[in-house]
Parts: sequence; structure tokens; C-alpha cells
Amino acid sequence: MAKQNIQQPKNSPKNNGHDRKELKVSAIENGTVIDHIPAFSVFQVIRILNLDNIPNQIMIGTNLDSQKLGKKGIIKVSNKYFESEEINKIALVAPTATLIVIKDYTVVYKAKVEIPDKIKKIVKCINPNCITNHENIPTKFIVIDKEDLRLQCHYCEKVTKKEVINFI
Amino acid sequence: MAKQNIQQPKNSPKNNGHDRKELKVSAIENGTVIDHIPAFSVFQVIRILNLDNIPNQIMIGTNLDSQKLGKKGIIKVSNKYFESEEINKIALVAPTATLIVIKDYTVVYKAKVEIPDKIKKIVKCINPNCITNHENIPTKFIVIDKEDLRLQCHYCEKVTKKEVINFI
Repeated sequence: MAKQNIQQPKNSPKNNGHDRKELKVSAIENGTVIDHIPAFSVFQVIRILNLDNIPNQIMIGTNLDSQKLGKKGIIKVSNKYFESEEINKIALVAPTATLIVIKDYTVVYKAKVEIPDKIKKIVKCINPNCITNHENIPTKFIVIDKEDLRLQCHYCEKVTKKEVINFI
Repeated sequence: MAKQNIQQPKNSPKNNGHDRKELKVSAIENGTVIDHIPAFSVFQVIRILNLDNIPNQIMIGTNLDSQKLGKKGIIKVSNKYFESEEINKIALVAPTATLIVIKDYTVVYKAKVEIPDKIKKIVKCINPNCITNHENIPTKFIVIDKEDLRLQCHYCEKVTKKEVINFI
């Protein structure tokens, strides 16, 4: 699945030599594609993975039509591969995301992201008295419910629920 | 200039039916292209123009090779047009940017962004005693030097220089 989109006939009178309607991003030779990101989460995913601070070529498409999601985003990062621990952080904001690893234009690995067992640094603790909201200590949570997203703080043990998750 | 990149021969043995090396974004039918953005400014441009909060299809390429800039970014926003006042805000972080307006796959307007005479809201005043750093008043500056980027605060009259510009 090196090409992400279906090719339209190029020179029909209607489209004047252009592919119609849906913007396309060409295939990458080597790297990682993150697909099926809910459109409203695309920029959060970029921040979580620190993609705004790396030198690699990156292509991002957002608000693309998706049967599954309504509107989705897709990110393609050339010559970069992620550890599962790193990529699974995005599952909090993009539980539907698919990770696709590309080598030499060929899909070599494809999997859905999974909510990890522990979350570090990316979420704020909801308890205003928690030490992480007073000292310079990175937050740390155990995911006690993956389906209904509940995170228990390692320090104060208070549970932060999905509705009030606040990303740092 | 509806297509942004030169097409490579598609089916030569070397590239296996794929366009090599440089990622491409297909042409948009209607909308705005912002080209020649210094790569390190792409995400700031997105924030300044509020592109992370609109429903339009957007394609972004960053860290693309550029003879002029070394590494550049390009943003294509479907079915959106910007007022000069709005687009010129990005000149602070992307003075080399080119604005291209597309209608029916055709370039109808193309111009370099220009640093405006006044800047509102996007920059912080460097003076810690300025009222804008204490009350909920949006910042407002007169650009007193466009070449060497110096901004004079409308309220406290202190000059914020290019090296210390801090975006809100």
C-alpha cells in the first residue's frame, strides 16, 4: 500500500489534467505514515510527536474525507521511524490512528495504535494539589481503563477522566 | 502555475512507478497556496492564520528542498481566501513567503507577503510593565522599521526588536 489514494483518469475533459476534489500526497520512499487521525487531532499529534522540531520532510493532509471518520488527517514523515512507546502516546487523541511503516515504497508494517499502560509527560494531572502542579516533576499516569479512558496519577493517585484530559 | 512541482517520468525502472525523492502535493482547484515559508516557521504560520481551527482541506509540506531558502514549507488551503491584512501577519515569521490565489486550477494572483504597518495581537510587548502584560488588552504595535523589524508598542511606546520578538 505504497500509494495512499486511488488514481483518477488524468486527462478527461472535466478535470483538465488534474486529479479532482481530494488533495493527494505522493508516496514516501522510506518512513512512517500515520493515517486515520481524527481531523481535529492532527495538530495535537504533531505536537505530541514533536514533528514541528525535526528536519525530516513531512507532509500533512487534514480535513480529508473519510468514510470511517467523517474528516481525517494523515501525516507522512520521511526517513523516520517511531518506537511503539512513542507512537502509542497519540492513541489518547487519535485512538483510530493507523501506523504504517514504509521501506522502499513498500508497506512493511501496519498496525493500529494502542493506548499504552502508562502515560508520561503529555497530560496534566487534574488535581490542583498534586506535586506535579507545583514542582518541576513530569507527570506520570497508569491507564486504569483503556476503553473509557481513565488515568490514575502515579503521585497523588487521583483519577483524571477522559472528559477533563488536559494536554500539556 | 496550477501544479507546484515538475513531474518525473513515472515508470522508469529506478523509481518503480513512484515519483522520487521529493514529496509532492497535488494541485488545488480553488483556494490559497502559501509558498516559500522558511521551514522553521511553518507551524507558526499555521497558528497565526488559525489553520488548525478551520474545516477546510489543508495540505502542508515542510522541510522541502528549496534553492532559495535551503529548506522550505508550503501550505495549500482549499476553498479559502485571505484578506491582505490577515495574510501579511505571517510576514513577521515568513518574510520570503509567496501568496498564490488559485481559481479553477489556475493562478489568478501571486504576490510576496509584505510586513504590515501595524501588528495586532500576535506579538507580546517586551516591556514587563506594559499594560498589555497585566490587563486583558490585545497588543498593538506600529512597525517603525520594516527592514530591521522594530515594533513600537501603541500603549507604552517601548520598541520590541526582531531578536526578542515573542509570539503570543
